Amino acid sequence: MPTIQFLPFQQSTESDGRRTLLEMVRELGLPLQAACGGKKVCGRCRVIIEESRDLLPPPTEREREALGKLIEKGYRLACETVLSDEARVYIPEESQTRPPVILTSDGFGDFSIRLQPAVKPYYLEVPPPVLERVTADRERLLGALEAGYRLKKTEIDPLVLPQLPQTLRTRENQITAAVRNGREVVGLFPGREERLLGLAVDIGTTTLVVYLLDLQTGKRLAVSSALNPQIHFGDDIISRIAFCQKDPEGSVQLREAVRQGLNDLISRVVEDADVRPELILEAVVVGNTAMHHFFLGLETRYLAMAPYPPVVQESLVVKGRDVGLAINSSGYVRLLPLKAGFVGSDIMAGILATGLHKSRRVRLLIDLGTNGEIVLGNKDRLLCCSAAAGPAFEGGHVRWGMRASAGAIENVRIDPETLEISLRTIQDQPPLGLCGSGILSAVAEMIRRGILLAKGNFNPAIHSSRLREGRDGPEVVLRWKWESLTDQEIVFTQKDVAEAQMAKAAIQAGVEYLKEIFGNQPIEEILLAGAFGNYADPEDARTLGLIPVLPATKVRAVGNAAGYGACLTLLDKNRAKEADRIARKLEYVELAGNSRFQELLVDSLLFPGATDFKEFI
Amino acid sequence: MPTIQFLPFQQSTESDGRRTLLEMVRELGLPLQAACGGKKVCGRCRVIIEESRDLLPPPTEREREALGKLIEKGYRLACETVLSDEARVYIPEESQTRPPVILTSDGFGDFSIRLQPAVKPYYLEVPPPVLERVTADRERLLGALEAGYRLKKTEIDPLVLPQLPQTLRTRENQITAAVRNGREVVGLFPGREERLLGLAVDIGTTTLVVYLLDLQTGKRLAVSSALNPQIHFGDDIISRIAFCQKDPEGSVQLREAVRQGLNDLISRVVEDADVRPELILEAVVVGNTAMHHFFLGLETRYLAMAPYPPVVQESLVVKGRDVGLAINSSGYVRLLPLKAGFVGSDIMAGILATGLHKSRRVRLLIDLGTNGEIVLGNKDRLLCCSAAAGPAFEGGHVRWGMRASAGAIENVRIDPETLEISLRTIQDQPPLGLCGSGILSAVAEMIRRGILLAKGNFNPAIHSSRLREGRDGPEVVLRWKWESLTDQEIVFTQKDVAEAQMAKAAIQAGVEYLKEIFGNQPIEEILLAGAFGNYADPEDARTLGLIPVLPATKVRAVGNAAGYGACLTLLDKNRAKEADRIARKLEYVELAGNSRFQELLVDSLLFPGATDFKEFI
Repeated sequence: MPTIQFLPFQQSTESDGRRTLLEMVRELGLPLQAACGGKKVCGRCRVIIEESRDLLPPPTEREREALGKLIEKGYRLACETVLSDEARVYIPEESQTRPPVILTSDGFGDFSIRLQPAVKPYYLEVPPPVLERVTADRERLLGALEAGYRLKKTEIDPLVLPQLPQTLRTRENQITAAVRNGREVVGLFPGREERLLGLAVDIGTTTLVVYLLDLQTGKRLAVSSALNPQIHFGDDIISRIAFCQKDPEGSVQLREAVRQGLNDLISRVVEDADVRPELILEAVVVGNTAMHHFFLGLETRYLAMAPYPPVVQESLVVKGRDVGLAINSSGYVRLLPLKAGFVGSDIMAGILATGLHKSRRVRLLIDLGTNGEIVLGNKDRLLCCSAAAGPAFEGGHVRWGMRASAGAIENVRIDPETLEISLRTIQDQPPLGLCGSGILSAVAEMIRRGILLAKGNFNPAIHSSRLREGRDGPEVVLRWKWESLTDQEIVFTQKDVAEAQMAKAAIQAGVEYLKEIFGNQPIEEILLAGAFGNYADPEDARTLGLIPVLPATKVRAVGNAAGYGACLTLLDKNRAKEADRIARKLEYVELAGNSRFQELLVDSLLFPGATDFKEFI
Repeated sequence: MPTIQFLPFQQSTESDGRRTLLEMVRELGLPLQAACGGKKVCGRCRVIIEESRDLLPPPTEREREALGKLIEKGYRLACETVLSDEARVYIPEESQTRPPVILTSDGFGDFSIRLQPAVKPYYLEVPPPVLERVTADRERLLGALEAGYRLKKTEIDPLVLPQLPQTLRTRENQITAAVRNGREVVGLFPGREERLLGLAVDIGTTTLVVYLLDLQTGKRLAVSSALNPQIHFGDDIISRIAFCQKDPEGSVQLREAVRQGLNDLISRVVEDADVRPELILEAVVVGNTAMHHFFLGLETRYLAMAPYPPVVQESLVVKGRDVGLAINSSGYVRLLPLKAGFVGSDIMAGILATGLHKSRRVRLLIDLGTNGEIVLGNKDRLLCCSAAAGPAFEGGHVRWGMRASAGAIENVRIDPETLEISLRTIQDQPPLGLCGSGILSAVAEMIRRGILLAKGNFNPAIHSSRLREGRDGPEVVLRWKWESLTDQEIVFTQKDVAEAQMAKAAIQAGVEYLKEIFGNQPIEEILLAGAFGNYADPEDARTLGLIPVLPATKVRAVGNAAGYGACLTLLDKNRAKEADRIARKLEYVELAGNSRFQELLVDSLLFPGATDFKEFI
């Protein structure tokens, strides 16, 4: 990350005076973290002013609190800083948003797929026109489709039509027509072209994943992922919705950001697989409701207002060109159905991929993000809810929390005897903070060693050099200043424990509530979806109570189930109808304002693995 | 027309040296005539170099021939001139392409229209979402459409969807949905909106006409016309097709030119009628096959190569946004069907408007342009052909020919006694040249006065000061130099007579050939479509043999029948199917290479009104 030079003219805006450094950095698209989306809460947007510090206005109270002695080293919070003169600004490594570690496992072995893509190639030899009875190119092509394949009343996309005369004549009237569902010609290729491609797209709040598949063989040709560029407008859904409400152009910016991000990924998979992008003739897109709406440019304001109605629920099929996706402009994009404001098509795809809706056994699917989406049921009944867990398990609202990227602590072990601490980080890099599984692991170990009690408070009877009083109450020092390259201590505080505790309680209460509605039938399998599910230790999750402690219950990480569901739908068009059936069958349970859920939430705050747990039940 | 200053840098091209002045003027979109499309044939692109004439290369032989003494006054042909230095160039009035006089008669009285537009407004009161069972905006809207109007399985255009949340909430859940054929919501308006609009579009080779209609009342709100901006790329179809073949970007330029021309007209009618353009939700487009193809960006090269196959024949329905038409981007554009390379949807619309296909009587419809489209028949059988008349009746290939705009001679009378000549011009302006009806009138009068003989040669026995020998053989002086403001004589030459003779022979032979195929049944009515039909004197046409001389045959000018047919289709969607039926029923008779037609063509060269006609039959 080079130092950026800001010139004074860059900071003037047309109307309301000066912009903050954060806004300027954002505009340049630079990878500066701002978990709160610029709401001046998270304190992550630390930058170093390299020169002319004296020309800056003095640090605000928030900056003094958040940065302490770092201010002397030139650190400032970008969201608080308004430049009054030219400045050189450096974004230190810990403040950068970096490519996260993303799951792209090869989990297809689990599924038996009957290859039935929506778009198929039809090889044709089209008779040339004759003077006695002149038939136009289009009508001769459609005639050949009917004669050769019994496809009747087929249409041709008007944007394909201009390619027809030349394509037809390139290989002496031998041509391949890519026909969608037997009804519409969406692509034309000279001679024989067997390799038509499809794209499965998973739009996560944090991460975009794109899979490139061969529609004729089902083979996965490439996969690529990146941070959702909307991150620059806010880390979580609510920040982004708020951004749109503030700025009339906001939803356009968010729409273009995600489309650009996806198109960059498309370029990458196309290059990796060494194929032509015009061969991509179909895409399936999944995502949570807000991501779905942002992608389509739909209003999200009402998703954040009771009764939280989405703009659309059923599945949609739109032309690639109408949503600006860089596939063949005549290809279609299918968006799987949504259920509610916080139960999106990613869940529908996840159910599809895990087969919950066809299972005899009662199973529980948890996709843990900022909102924990929970599905409980079997082929007879499917319940779902969305628990507002908060971003703790994604590294948010935790003092040293961070996303799952290189240098993130993913595992914490505390020696039972000495209470000495050992850390494991992603890619074995020097530790920079804790990602979700690290936070889970830290809390679980503190519970096991008796450091934390059932209510989440530090046990005053336990003493260690690692335990001390900090500015947010008691804290454990995970890494001493002298162990650190960055000269910074990494601590885990009472306040951080409380964040994790709230998050796990929301999930736990959601699960409990669904269980009650389902008649308290035993859960036979727990499926953990998403990155957190893959990296989290199920034992840690049980220690916190995040997942039910049930005998004979298997816990299985299912990876990016939403992405798999999208791939499945791409390869077998009947899955789309199945997703529609799932959406209709799925019963959405609203937790907001529900008094029984509230009761369960309070009960769920306790840590079941704690030494004093039995005293409270 | 101001003088244009060309700077040297404007003339350099990247690769092949210098551009001609014509190319430079074209690029600026200035209204300079070039009937031949820059093929260095027509000699119309006269410009005056105002300064530094001496710096120009000397005139070419063609320029000397075409301009004569005008060269001394600074005249040059833009197609021949390559500037080597800065120059000031003036486009004199006679070289400008000016808005033609275009028919926009109110001929609707003839039709009884059952108003059945494709798009209709549905007023809805949509129930708000409730927390117990949250239904998305889209599904509530569709539910209300089903509940209120029994419209099932309706879709919403994906580009309408973003407007839904706000439109729904502007008037407290009262909303008007514009639904096309009961199947797709193509527009949303807050509250009650009854006035949905439609656009009928007639794309002529020379002229664009746009009609704005109220789809609920059938009322015509505005009409506007302009020259087809493709004129800059060639006056006739073949020149434009040749332009596309030469330049790989040619078809894109032609497509954009006509789309821009139409969008300018749309702006005008919208302003004239004082309405919002987003209310235009449907359009019907007609035009000859080449114009249809240019508009859609389809290859036209094969239209000029035997067996002249079009790219498409059947009617097409495309989104406005996919063809760049400035109506509501979710509205549809219907293109009526074509029959052959030179029998376009304008003919289908003309048949629709005149009801030829439902008539018991045998009728003849002639639409005379560069290609004379001829339809003969009744409800039992319909024949059509396209006779390559050439541009003579549009003022092309005639020395003093011009389009029907102010100053064009539209009528010539020769005194039977003195052979003195009187002229009538359009808008009574000083004469600049002859338009089609003027050419017809000049030839007819010359025949009547015995000046021309049956074979089209000048009668050597007739003497007058108006008759003399010119550089193209004998000629008649229509206007003396001293009568002229522009110091120029207007003559009509033996060569001009031959052009008109060839044109009328092609039409006459086409009519005769169709008559023979039809079994020589008597024609009960002749319908003349287009501007020429409106202004031409039927008696003049009979004198030349352009239309059959039949006792008890009525001749009627039907104005812009193609435009009327488009309007009809817009107001009554069933007419679209009728047009499809007409296209299937219509029998296309190919004239090219047909030996019987060739025989008839030779016979048709004679003028039946000439004094010596009887000697030759």
